[in-house]
Amino acid sequence: MPSRIYCFIGVSLLVPLFSMAAAAPPIPPDVVERAVALRDRALGDSTAYDIVESLTMEIGPRPAGSAADQAARAWAVARLTALGFSNVRTEAVSIPRWARGTIDVRMTAPFAQPLVATSLGGSPGTPDIGIEAPVVRVASLAELSALSREDLEGRIAFVDHVMERHKTGRGYGVSAMIRGCAHVVAADRGALATVIRSAGTSRHRFAHTGAMLRGNAAQIPAMAISNADADLLAHAIGTGDDVLLRLHSTARDLPATSTANVIAEVPGRGRLADEIVILGAHLDSWDLGTGAIDDASGVGIVIAAAKMIMDNSEGPRRTLRVVLYGAEEIGIYGGQAYAEAHAESLDRHVVALEADFGPGRVWQFSSRVADASLGIVDEIAALLEPLGIERGDNAASGGPDIGPLRKAGVPVFELSQDGTRYFDFHHTADDTLDKVDRDDLNQNVAAYTTAAWVAASIEARFGRLPSDNSQWQCQE
Amino acid sequence: MPSRIYCFIGVSLLVPLFSMAAAAPPIPPDVVERAVALRDRALGDSTAYDIVESLTMEIGPRPAGSAADQAARAWAVARLTALGFSNVRTEAVSIPRWARGTIDVRMTAPFAQPLVATSLGGSPGTPDIGIEAPVVRVASLAELSALSREDLEGRIAFVDHVMERHKTGRGYGVSAMIRGCAHVVAADRGALATVIRSAGTSRHRFAHTGAMLRGNAAQIPAMAISNADADLLAHAIGTGDDVLLRLHSTARDLPATSTANVIAEVPGRGRLADEIVILGAHLDSWDLGTGAIDDASGVGIVIAAAKMIMDNSEGPRRTLRVVLYGAEEIGIYGGQAYAEAHAESLDRHVVALEADFGPGRVWQFSSRVADASLGIVDEIAALLEPLGIERGDNAASGGPDIGPLRKAGVPVFELSQDGTRYFDFHHTADDTLDKVDRDDLNQNVAAYTTAAWVAASIEARFGRLPSDNSQWQCQE
Repeated sequence: MPSRIYCFIGVSLLVPLFSMAAAAPPIPPDVVERAVALRDRALGDSTAYDIVESLTMEIGPRPAGSAADQAARAWAVARLTALGFSNVRTEAVSIPRWARGTIDVRMTAPFAQPLVATSLGGSPGTPDIGIEAPVVRVASLAELSALSREDLEGRIAFVDHVMERHKTGRGYGVSAMIRGCAHVVAADRGALATVIRSAGTSRHRFAHTGAMLRGNAAQIPAMAISNADADLLAHAIGTGDDVLLRLHSTARDLPATSTANVIAEVPGRGRLADEIVILGAHLDSWDLGTGAIDDASGVGIVIAAAKMIMDNSEGPRRTLRVVLYGAEEIGIYGGQAYAEAHAESLDRHVVALEADFGPGRVWQFSSRVADASLGIVDEIAALLEPLGIERGDNAASGGPDIGPLRKAGVPVFELSQDGTRYFDFHHTADDTLDKVDRDDLNQNVAAYTTAAWVAASIEARFGRLPSDNSQWQCQE
Repeated sequence: MPSRIYCFIGVSLLVPLFSMAAAAPPIPPDVVERAVALRDRALGDSTAYDIVESLTMEIGPRPAGSAADQAARAWAVARLTALGFSNVRTEAVSIPRWARGTIDVRMTAPFAQPLVATSLGGSPGTPDIGIEAPVVRVASLAELSALSREDLEGRIAFVDHVMERHKTGRGYGVSAMIRGCAHVVAADRGALATVIRSAGTSRHRFAHTGAMLRGNAAQIPAMAISNADADLLAHAIGTGDDVLLRLHSTARDLPATSTANVIAEVPGRGRLADEIVILGAHLDSWDLGTGAIDDASGVGIVIAAAKMIMDNSEGPRRTLRVVLYGAEEIGIYGGQAYAEAHAESLDRHVVALEADFGPGRVWQFSSRVADASLGIVDEIAALLEPLGIERGDNAASGGPDIGPLRKAGVPVFELSQDGTRYFDFHHTADDTLDKVDRDDLNQNVAAYTTAAWVAASIEARFGRLPSDNSQWQCQE
């Protein structure tokens, strides 16, 4: 799932370049007929679940740069080759590397309680003797920003925001911003560390990890505690007594290393063969769980969709390119590297789809295409409607790894999974295979198969969008 | 909740001694009227929740013999005194003591995966260098017992039984037997350690701890893994490849120590004042969570029920004795010590009630009384019926801490909580305050208040039952 940890600064100007162009002709009947057949067949296919099971059970946690990350790449190359894909290859991606180490967080006053906590990705550790200091609670980044050095110096900042649960996952915006930025704001004001209520909706006692801003910001330890432990800390603060936390963490940076994107193709045919439809997901995961919903599910969905088309049609006219991105969780390194490595051919990237929001049923299909292509998109939406999918707007973001493509003007489709429960498991030890429902997963495969098949089979393209030079930074 | 870890060997002969006695007269109208008023008032009371909140937030995990256990006793004495109870006191209980230490469990072949695991209470640790050995999977104690030394020597036994979810908690019988006994059976056959699928129903990634048989049995490390990790291990074994686990634990026994039962009373009035109605719960908890459902909820329920009667009636005729038992989890030490210390006065114990099955709504009222008293019990059941409680049978066990009283012939009432979700949290880190619903908790208070009020206010007693000399032992 998107590690959107920074605030969007700037204005997105969505001015389709070809808004006055003639509308594309309708989808040919034979493409429609095949789309329906592929869609319905996908609902009974076992490929996606088999992939999720294998990746989570046989590889498990695969944080970027680890030995398991390397094993996951070998697994992916072998699996994609065995499934019959063409041009299976890897493309190297340079990344920083970080080790979680151990963590121990406890309240020492006014009550003695151990807390369930996790270091945020990229956080430094504490000094060897740990940190023991009073806690200052705020409910938001704005409240944190309003504090002075006098308020925070020598203290631990506790940012206590309860993430909203919503089908769209919209509560993640605010929570991931806190996760990404609180330590920057707090360090500027002399705080020794930050502890946040997890950016997650689990009602169980899991701390949610996730990326935080690295780079030039002052570095203080940044940790997250579970919702139950945040309740406990808030209760203690509510007593009016001084509250002390003791933190110890051995998190640390390791020497920079590399990972890779794994790429596989279903080659196109004829005149459109050098045009590309991207089916993306990310291969890395956080280290606490086995990465079943984030993002083995996406890996399973896009591989199964591409294979469904490969095995049950005369082949797409455009090339279907499956990209299993590396190092998404720590900062979308694979997505950025792909866009840079393929900068010369981005105009041949007709549309990009990504699956990185878990295995919940797709409920909405949105797009970001030129106006002239909206008729075609509506036709695809009609093919998805029997799956219980409604038509969304034309302002889709698409997904984190294809973000750099979108920003370069490549059209995107977005199949929105129901994210009501996604953040119960996201970035926790609880992200395991048993959270994946086979039928829901296959509804995803059917949706991705349908959209990718049409996009790769019709004559029309989806235009180009203006490039987007907006930048992200911590908001104060 | 009952640490019923041994198999029941023997026959329970429930032969009420007074089955031919004349039936007791009905409950007097003024007692009924007051019962209804107390019951309904209890539904809106905040005492129970306040107690659960305070005990879990301000004391937290309180394993028997720990500093927090001692703090819990001081908390209980202060709280009971402040609430206005009489004769607040402690009675010492001698106990063994055990330290969990650290644990690390991982699969090393055919895949490398860390597993979420916990040592079972009383387990020894591994050698410093750990244990790495092949795994042998069985689905039951019977299957384990059927193995030979050749099958198990030098190996790790994995007992993979999935606990049944049921309102009555009936699935716990088999699962707790495995937890308590698997290491005994496996050690007899030369196994190096046992790993069980947790005795619990959590669909989240928690390992459930709990007591295992100590005593004369050969001691090998005994651990539990979460349901998701048991799935993973079963999957690996299903591949047909050799599966290796590496175990490391620093669990160990500490010198024996003492804890205490905390007792408080609402004194009776007049001729029946030296007769006693017991309201029991246990004060200790396992160390992983804050013991909210097990058993701060019970502590809150019985204290609130006694206080409701104390504050809103002219007082019970019999003495209401609240007993907060110590060291239940590690082997019902407090319950046994109470029965021994009060052996001379057990004939003045008219009836005993316990709350140790969480804060779910009470759905059934059962009893273990002389036949002649069944009419009164039916009348109490009629008073409970508006709370949604149905009448159960006359074969109640009552609860773990009052088990020694029951076995000595003291009648018991049992108010059965809905246990459908109890074993999702039981003995895990996830046993925290947010799992307690205020309304459900107060329905419990209303039920306990009603039953205790009537039992303490009517002239009639509930007879005596034959003593029960059955013993428990590991079944093979």
